[in-house]
Amino acid sequence: MLSPTPRTQVRRKRDRQQSDPTTLHAVLDEALICHLGLVDADGAPLVLPTMHARVDDVVYVHGSSGAASLARDQEVCLTVTLLDGLVLARSVFAHSANYRSAVVRGRARRVTDPDEHLRALEAIVEHLTPGQWDHAKQPDRRESAATAVLALDLGEASVKVRQGPPGDPEAVAQGDDRWAGVVPVTTVLGPPRTCPALPADTPVPAHVTRWVRGSLRGDPAP
Amino acid sequence: MLSPTPRTQVRRKRDRQQSDPTTLHAVLDEALICHLGLVDADGAPLVLPTMHARVDDVVYVHGSSGAASLARDQEVCLTVTLLDGLVLARSVFAHSANYRSAVVRGRARRVTDPDEHLRALEAIVEHLTPGQWDHAKQPDRRESAATAVLALDLGEASVKVRQGPPGDPEAVAQGDDRWAGVVPVTTVLGPPRTCPALPADTPVPAHVTRWVRGSLRGDPAP
Repeated sequence: MLSPTPRTQVRRKRDRQQSDPTTLHAVLDEALICHLGLVDADGAPLVLPTMHARVDDVVYVHGSSGAASLARDQEVCLTVTLLDGLVLARSVFAHSANYRSAVVRGRARRVTDPDEHLRALEAIVEHLTPGQWDHAKQPDRRESAATAVLALDLGEASVKVRQGPPGDPEAVAQGDDRWAGVVPVTTVLGPPRTCPALPADTPVPAHVTRWVRGSLRGDPAP
Repeated sequence: MLSPTPRTQVRRKRDRQQSDPTTLHAVLDEALICHLGLVDADGAPLVLPTMHARVDDVVYVHGSSGAASLARDQEVCLTVTLLDGLVLARSVFAHSANYRSAVVRGRARRVTDPDEHLRALEAIVEHLTPGQWDHAKQPDRRESAATAVLALDLGEASVKVRQGPPGDPEAVAQGDDRWAGVVPVTTVLGPPRTCPALPADTPVPAHVTRWVRGSLRGDPAP
């Protein structure tokens, strides 16, 4: 179970906190991007979007050289959010969102071991498109050295989940008959666009086609 | 034009920085969620997902009471990211993402004026579903007091955009004929689900139907 520390104990809407590591892993694994929070040299917060992959209880983060040097051995916060729906309630006050979010806090470690660095890059590439690592040209030593990877332990993490219909159903019994409900939000991968430097009829590899097909969740509106 | 300060001058991949406020506004306006970065009482970064709306050159952020008290009169960083595609290059090193992201830095102001507070809530509700503010029950004084809103000036902001095919087309001329391309990523709103407390045949209001239809961008995969 996730053991919330005072820092990861959710303070607001505690009923939305989940302590199941399976949920934490699922949120990190489903999200295509993450947001990495740092404190800059002047003490001001900086939040940068980047890409990640989880391997067991570590999350690897693709760092720009700037972010990586800012984050090295510093406290960081990695946040991942999956927006699942817009919750349109009767009262403005009860409006909300359905979502699953993970917040991981801790000291970022710059990955320097060549084997771990390569495995981390593989995890990130495979996270974004399974099967792509073996398809692509592996990084040479110069390319690896130019790609910063940060590692963050999942020891201090929290997950928050809100799902379901609007939270003010009692309004109906009180005579409020205006429409309320949820508008689902999904992320969809579209048909691959072949690089214009290739012949247009270059076949799309099966691992890419499969990944795009598998991404179709929910029912896009008519 | 946006005038990058030393803090918002993009350091990495400068060619991706755009200085057109129209792009900044468009990114903030299209994104359904944002990530707000704070520095907590111990000096550690904290990144929380929340919702926002832009009104002219101010972005209003829906703050939990905890985040709002942490952020009040403090430096914050609001980051919004629209993921547009997975860029599958030939070499792992050239893998990338197509995206549009905005980073806004500055001191957060807690909105206390009742008129501005109400207008900010209206902007946030309308941002997420146009037409919803007039449909819903307006907040009363108690509800307004319980909803924290932060305002952040757009004076110090940067936008980064990467679009287009993989960046290693020269590999083709060098005899590398493996497939490369872009997998588009889109966010799609699904058919509304009526609140189970209502009769199932309660008609979905036209502003919601219109919003869901209008959200269909890109071509979901077959």
